[in-house]
Amino acid sequence: MRQRKHFSRQRLSQSPESQRRGAQPGGAGWLYGTHPVLAALHNPARHNRRLLMTAEQARILAEKLPAAPQAEIVERSRLDSLLPGGSVHQGIALLAEPLPEPGLDQACEPLAGRRNIVVLLDQVTDPHNVGAILRSAAAFGARAVVTTERYAPEARGTLAKAASGALELVPLVRVVNLARALDDLADHGYWRLGLDGKAERTLAEAAPDAPIALVLGAEGSGLRRLTAERCDLLVRLPVSGAVESLNVSNAAAVALYALATGGTAGTRE
Amino acid sequence: MRQRKHFSRQRLSQSPESQRRGAQPGGAGWLYGTHPVLAALHNPARHNRRLLMTAEQARILAEKLPAAPQAEIVERSRLDSLLPGGSVHQGIALLAEPLPEPGLDQACEPLAGRRNIVVLLDQVTDPHNVGAILRSAAAFGARAVVTTERYAPEARGTLAKAASGALELVPLVRVVNLARALDDLADHGYWRLGLDGKAERTLAEAAPDAPIALVLGAEGSGLRRLTAERCDLLVRLPVSGAVESLNVSNAAAVALYALATGGTAGTRE
Repeated sequence: MRQRKHFSRQRLSQSPESQRRGAQPGGAGWLYGTHPVLAALHNPARHNRRLLMTAEQARILAEKLPAAPQAEIVERSRLDSLLPGGSVHQGIALLAEPLPEPGLDQACEPLAGRRNIVVLLDQVTDPHNVGAILRSAAAFGARAVVTTERYAPEARGTLAKAASGALELVPLVRVVNLARALDDLADHGYWRLGLDGKAERTLAEAAPDAPIALVLGAEGSGLRRLTAERCDLLVRLPVSGAVESLNVSNAAAVALYALATGGTAGTRE
Repeated sequence: MRQRKHFSRQRLSQSPESQRRGAQPGGAGWLYGTHPVLAALHNPARHNRRLLMTAEQARILAEKLPAAPQAEIVERSRLDSLLPGGSVHQGIALLAEPLPEPGLDQACEPLAGRRNIVVLLDQVTDPHNVGAILRSAAAFGARAVVTTERYAPEARGTLAKAASGALELVPLVRVVNLARALDDLADHGYWRLGLDGKAERTLAEAAPDAPIALVLGAEGSGLRRLTAERCDLLVRLPVSGAVESLNVSNAAAVALYALATGGTAGTRE
């Protein structure tokens, strides 16, 4: 009995640590907060391992919760210690396998009768930003968000919280090489537009009425040279010279809005 | 000598704590990161007390630094312990008095020959969001960002870092009562547009060619009833039904872009 208890406590305390640090990418990870967890529970493509929540949250969510998995009722402090410091978990956490990841072709092949927009992130490392970008991608109907396998945050925890459920809606595609992914997208008829504050034309002026691969770089350093060279056009947002740039998730939201609502400047010949 | 050393260490270790917790609003606070600190040092309206940086940062910034105050060269670990855990300080921190705060009338009185946009935040508490909104306000030429005195983050630290220097460019006005501030703005000829995902008309359709007071509520709860009732119009962004809303700073950026670039739907009679 003692041994069993020890074993189960050890599993519990090691799981989040092993997910946060040093775990194989692709292992199960914690999602927390009501929106991310409810969205994951309602996503049939998710395989969930454990659901933990406070008694209060269980009462509040009683009608919104699908049947499985059985929730373990825990104290708030248990979640505090289980999750990274400062996680806004709202009294609910889910240990879930990562979603099956579609290939780039599968996620992005242009569909007829709709606007096809794909967002590519060049070393955007802050999970708050990548999560917020997923949320905006869902809001403005983008097909997918593409990151590199390295220099990109894991699809769990902070990223999932910032995505507020959008991780279940918009495929997050990881590629080994962003330049090659851009070539593949061009083969599918995408125009590759790199966002660059020093570009001459604005996105709204320049964006053709065609599938668009919108490429954003890290704040500060911007697009890497090899990434910028792969773009068909560099475009900017019409911001005042008073600031160097917008926050990258704000820039993505504005660009997606501009593409969703903007006029059509031409078509790819 | 021993006493003096003790005294100075105590001051150093107490300062950031007292600024972060329990200090009088209006006391000096730490700014950190290259953009916020350089912007503050170049702002003649700032009164700075202490500038700390690593030797490496001092070398990098040698040409960009104005004369005063004299920098204290410290180890990175000193900044780590001085600032809240996880602060991305980039090896530089500045203890500065808060900026003189203009009154609402002074900051917002409509100016001829330009678009007059003011952003009001109804209990948006996350300093990352308020900082990013200041940055977007600077980027799209908004006159001011208005928050309540309570339920709003302090103009320092995380907020200043997220604002990336925009705290020196766009007045952050704190008011006791947001509903009264909205009335005052209406007296100045502002149209009060509240962002509400359930509104019928989009911002771009509805926004008149007049001074605009754009009101955003907290994520989740949205605008409080009293705030919504003070608005002339509730408007939404054209987002898909797949997600409930955008991140609030993303919504602000999109709305400011829409106002800066959008057509003009009419004028206030």
